[in-house]
Amino acid sequence: MPELRKDPIIGRWVIISTERGKRPSDFVIEPEKKKGGFCPFCEGNEDKTPPEVLAYRKPGTKPNKPGWWVRVVSNKYPALRVEGELFRRGEGIFDMMNGIGAHEVVIETPEHDKDLVDLSVEHIEDVLWAFHDRIIDLKNDSRLKYILIFKNHGSAAGASLEHTHSQLIATPIIPKRVAEEIEGARRYYEYKERCIYCDIIRQEREANKRLVVENEAYIAWEPFAPRFPFETWILPKRHAIHFEEPKKDEYFYFAKILKETLQRLNKALSHPPYNFIIHNSPIQDDKGGELHWHMEIIPKLTKVAGFEWGSGFYINPTPPEDAANFLREINISDV
Amino acid sequence: MPELRKDPIIGRWVIISTERGKRPSDFVIEPEKKKGGFCPFCEGNEDKTPPEVLAYRKPGTKPNKPGWWVRVVSNKYPALRVEGELFRRGEGIFDMMNGIGAHEVVIETPEHDKDLVDLSVEHIEDVLWAFHDRIIDLKNDSRLKYILIFKNHGSAAGASLEHTHSQLIATPIIPKRVAEEIEGARRYYEYKERCIYCDIIRQEREANKRLVVENEAYIAWEPFAPRFPFETWILPKRHAIHFEEPKKDEYFYFAKILKETLQRLNKALSHPPYNFIIHNSPIQDDKGGELHWHMEIIPKLTKVAGFEWGSGFYINPTPPEDAANFLREINISDV
Repeated sequence: MPELRKDPIIGRWVIISTERGKRPSDFVIEPEKKKGGFCPFCEGNEDKTPPEVLAYRKPGTKPNKPGWWVRVVSNKYPALRVEGELFRRGEGIFDMMNGIGAHEVVIETPEHDKDLVDLSVEHIEDVLWAFHDRIIDLKNDSRLKYILIFKNHGSAAGASLEHTHSQLIATPIIPKRVAEEIEGARRYYEYKERCIYCDIIRQEREANKRLVVENEAYIAWEPFAPRFPFETWILPKRHAIHFEEPKKDEYFYFAKILKETLQRLNKALSHPPYNFIIHNSPIQDDKGGELHWHMEIIPKLTKVAGFEWGSGFYINPTPPEDAANFLREINISDV
Repeated sequence: MPELRKDPIIGRWVIISTERGKRPSDFVIEPEKKKGGFCPFCEGNEDKTPPEVLAYRKPGTKPNKPGWWVRVVSNKYPALRVEGELFRRGEGIFDMMNGIGAHEVVIETPEHDKDLVDLSVEHIEDVLWAFHDRIIDLKNDSRLKYILIFKNHGSAAGASLEHTHSQLIATPIIPKRVAEEIEGARRYYEYKERCIYCDIIRQEREANKRLVVENEAYIAWEPFAPRFPFETWILPKRHAIHFEEPKKDEYFYFAKILKETLQRLNKALSHPPYNFIIHNSPIQDDKGGELHWHMEIIPKLTKVAGFEWGSGFYINPTPPEDAANFLREINISDV
């Protein structure tokens, strides 16, 4: 059983895989990503993954058989497990709990050689609906407090399989970064009685220095104080607390701006590895917090690592105004 | 002039290089590290760096000439600059200040083919004294609040030059991670009237599950909730707030445990790239805060990146008890 452990000084929880810990020799050679070779996410290999928990598939086709276009399965090597009671305990000064949660993989297409950006807007919309449907389902489990949806694209960004997919981790704790955002938004709200994200959107649409692209429902934006070059956020223009409560057609517009943003990043930066993370409100928070959900896209362009991890201090070599300019000027009519 | 900008939601400051921003094409090909070739840090090339601000050198040798064994120079491409007044200002909802500070390089040895771990304990002790002397000097600048000392070893850990060196960044703000630690330690002190680090050291020396090595004045320890496999901390056993206020012989013992810890990590993990960061108290904090200074060493073993950056959520595949075991069992009598 994996374990959740809390840093006693700053209060951050981490997942420790106690089951089969990696030994020193496991780290020595970073395995090269196999090009070609066998892929468990490809159509026809459905029996090589854990059984599907959701699939959008052609009428008449059977579960765990071909015929799907988006498919969600449990992670074969889950960081957290669904079984068991949540059991908090201490070890002297330290706090821990058992690793209850869920870890799922959203296979975005049956086709091995397509990336998310290559899919049609309607297909990407269905990937978003798959996130939605899984959140709605997992929300019923009252042990879980948060659902993290993210994508590692490219091995430098942490992807271990080439076939395009996103991941979902449901946890009994709220990740530290998100908790800080919720707290920051709450403080601002108490002071101003307005949402800080809504205020930022208003100011930034007016200033128009850091906007990349905008459509009916969303903006794609280079934040004012980004940690990384070309870090890009997508935010809904209306105040929306939960990703999983879209208005009609909002996922279509989200899919549209996501595809266009990825096209621009790809063309500007020659298809960089990247991560995206959806910063959503905690799932049991129905009272309406002050977070404004959004997606953060981080191209993996720089190598700097442990120093930032260790200090929380970032040096960004590209001003977001320059990044926004580059991305706006990209012509994507030919991609 | 670089700029310090504050994230309006979570309050984290970042440095933005506004001077000559990196363009997309600067990221496209990650430059291979040149083996051999010209090195500005080697003895004889002193005129290829900015002038030295400190050097330990043989009597009778001249500044910026050969004859030194530890040498500190300004960074040629500084993230922050010393010149000018600190000027805080706003842009609507956003806060920024100009990038006042210092950015220096500590060249640990004149010999190109030696790593820090290869130096004698006495030589490493002098590297620590160089950190000390630079802190004492920079402390006089009341614009500065914090001095961050760190090392990037190996290109995967962010080193851009092979010749072994550490860095010092002095900032007018306190880095977020450190501020969180100070706050966590303060909260614990208010509750218990004891230092949380001292309590941890006491408990961990007794339990002896996560200790790697110990000497007269320091322990090397795998923390209870580490973010990364083989993350290792070195802490002084006595309560010490400031790195730059050692008792007699303490730097000797710190050099000794640092060398031995790096030897163990090197042998266990085949000379991994790594970062170390000294978590020190803010320099203007003379009243004695509750932080207990320490060094965090992070071997760069895993690729996972943006997801952790974006969520503050870490999955560590190696329990610290296992890591401590591996490191303890290493025989370093032959290195």
